[in-house]
Amino acid sequence: PKIVSLPGDGIGPEVTAAAVQVLREVAPDVTIEEHLIGGVAYDTHGDPFPQVTRDALSDADAVLLGTVGGAQDSAWNLLPRHQRPESGLLALRKALGCYANLRPVRVQPGLEHLSPLKPELARGVDILIVRELLGGVYFDGDRKIDGDTAYNTMRYTTAEVERVAKVAFWAAEQRKGRVTSVDKANVLEVSELWRRDVTALRDRDYRGIHLNHEYVDSVAMLIVSDPSRYDVIVTENLFGDILSDLAAVIPGSLGLMPSASLGDGAGLFEPIHGSAPDIAGKGIANPAAAIMSAGMLLRHGLKRPDAANQIDRAVSIALRSHPTRDLGGAADTQTFTRAVMSALE
Amino acid sequence: PKIVSLPGDGIGPEVTAAAVQVLREVAPDVTIEEHLIGGVAYDTHGDPFPQVTRDALSDADAVLLGTVGGAQDSAWNLLPRHQRPESGLLALRKALGCYANLRPVRVQPGLEHLSPLKPELARGVDILIVRELLGGVYFDGDRKIDGDTAYNTMRYTTAEVERVAKVAFWAAEQRKGRVTSVDKANVLEVSELWRRDVTALRDRDYRGIHLNHEYVDSVAMLIVSDPSRYDVIVTENLFGDILSDLAAVIPGSLGLMPSASLGDGAGLFEPIHGSAPDIAGKGIANPAAAIMSAGMLLRHGLKRPDAANQIDRAVSIALRSHPTRDLGGAADTQTFTRAVMSALE
Ligand SMILES: CC(C)[C@H](C(=O)O)[C@@H](O)C(=O)O
Ligand SMILES: CC(C)[C@H](C(=O)O)[C@@H](O)C(=O)O
Repeated sequence: PKIVSLPGDGIGPEVTAAAVQVLREVAPDVTIEEHLIGGVAYDTHGDPFPQVTRDALSDADAVLLGTVGGAQDSAWNLLPRHQRPESGLLALRKALGCYANLRPVRVQPGLEHLSPLKPELARGVDILIVRELLGGVYFDGDRKIDGDTAYNTMRYTTAEVERVAKVAFWAAEQRKGRVTSVDKANVLEVSELWRRDVTALRDRDYRGIHLNHEYVDSVAMLIVSDPSRYDVIVTENLFGDILSDLAAVIPGSLGLMPSASLGDGAGLFEPIHGSAPDIAGKGIANPAAAIMSAGMLLRHGLKRPDAANQIDRAVSIALRSHPTRDLGGAADTQTFTRAVMSALE
Repeated sequence: PKIVSLPGDGIGPEVTAAAVQVLREVAPDVTIEEHLIGGVAYDTHGDPFPQVTRDALSDADAVLLGTVGGAQDSAWNLLPRHQRPESGLLALRKALGCYANLRPVRVQPGLEHLSPLKPELARGVDILIVRELLGGVYFDGDRKIDGDTAYNTMRYTTAEVERVAKVAFWAAEQRKGRVTSVDKANVLEVSELWRRDVTALRDRDYRGIHLNHEYVDSVAMLIVSDPSRYDVIVTENLFGDILSDLAAVIPGSLGLMPSASLGDGAGLFEPIHGSAPDIAGKGIANPAAAIMSAGMLLRHGLKRPDAANQIDRAVSIALRSHPTRDLGGAADTQTFTRAVMSALE
């Protein structure tokens, strides 16, 4: 199988290198081809998602992504929107047809103290957020800024709602069988459609799943005050952007959060943390999330659950034996990666 | 001065009665006229914001609101959108021209243990969220659900952005002088306008204010992991809905959270908690937020800061001496209200 690796900007190259090292160890038969995306791709090709990268995806089985984007005051942020690093990321999602972003939020036993929440609230949290990734206000063409007024359009079709809801129901079947669909149906028509279609799909094809509906403002509260109530959460793109980042703070470090984006073709696997330009190039970034993303790549992209489990176990061990700085430890990127490698054996 | 009181649904009547009692004590000269809104208004008049209520507002100096809405499975939720209780609330905001929703989030010293956050994170939190309340996706007429597709439009004009940003800058001048404007300018044109106009206003008229811009997903994280970094937050309607509710969990009970909505004419003052149909009519609801909303009414609506301070002090005392059940105590609505009344003297 062929994997395309896109290290991107900031700490992306460092953490991706660690993930690639682990990947080669547990899946020595894969081919890994590296390409540019984001700010570095703009600097080289004048395009944050250049044609050569796009071409490389055509026969890829999975994509391993680092991070994209620069510091707040980066020159990249002064470019027209379509040339900025983030546009490369959005174009990549679109090119791959990745409509379902899976964001597991799990508090590792023994690491509850890292959470900003009280340990009794953090303990045992195990949520899967399924965020719709290609619809809503992100990609709709009906958008404009013109003088004194600007607008964007939050649009969904039944087909878009159903395909992502299916992923959520399917995931819930492997878990506790409960799905919370999040919307703002008391105010928005687009949410009314969302709620109607999710409900109809459940009634038609997933009768074994327990489905409930909650408003996005209420979920923002409950995810903090009572996170254990959730199993699978499914929601539209913008709400998912906010809620998945919110939930990601519960385990205490973004350095622990992998993600998978699935869809029509090759899946996209990436740590959720940003490019952290302040520590880029110093060799101290925590590569755990990138390595766990390689685990998700093996599980969901290449259907190799055994290799994925091997990685998850090794990361767990390394987090305890060699915690990185963001976790209150002293291990640098290399030391942590070596700890994972030796825990693999 | 004339105050219109709109107790609404659920626990609204109980907590509003408590607030009115306190208000009469500290401002014996005000006239208070009670009217219907929400589900009870629909039941009586077939309209969640009936004409008689609308008429009463014309010469009001301020409006004291309880709560609107029923349980998830309430018959009200099966009505067409414009007849549901929430539509009464939205119509009320619009009728009053209340474009700036002020949501103070303060952790009371000594009550840090109530927070879902670790006490060291909760201690000293003092944020004011200013939410734009009449624009964006809430009221825009370009909205539709039609067969397999639905959309809503998130629209802002410069005038809408400026008037609410002014309130945020003005509030920051009375506080620590720092404003964080929240948007999603890396994806949305409407956010690009927002950011541009907030920046221009600061550069023109509020040079003494320290302004920064953050993305909504990032703020959702930081408000939990590092809430003390914020002084004043200003944002658009939908982001404000989510973030203000999120921030409201930090003090540990929604029963402690008042709000003020200001604009062209009379202001609207209400507790942020919902109608809590499960405990309605039992006399056990915590009226602190409603009483504190009466305090905000005196401060912002009638410009009587002394009376407002009197209420805030008395509530602080009563919270310690007679905590209600949501705070781990045993006081019921009446007992708590009596404690506030006697602390007033
Ligand atoms: C960088 C940005 C466009 C992106 C998004 O909003 O989708 C990011 O926040 C994410 O969640 O991956
Ligand atoms: C009830 C609903 C329409 C309302 C809103 O979204 O504005 C509520 O959540 C609030 O924040 O006051």
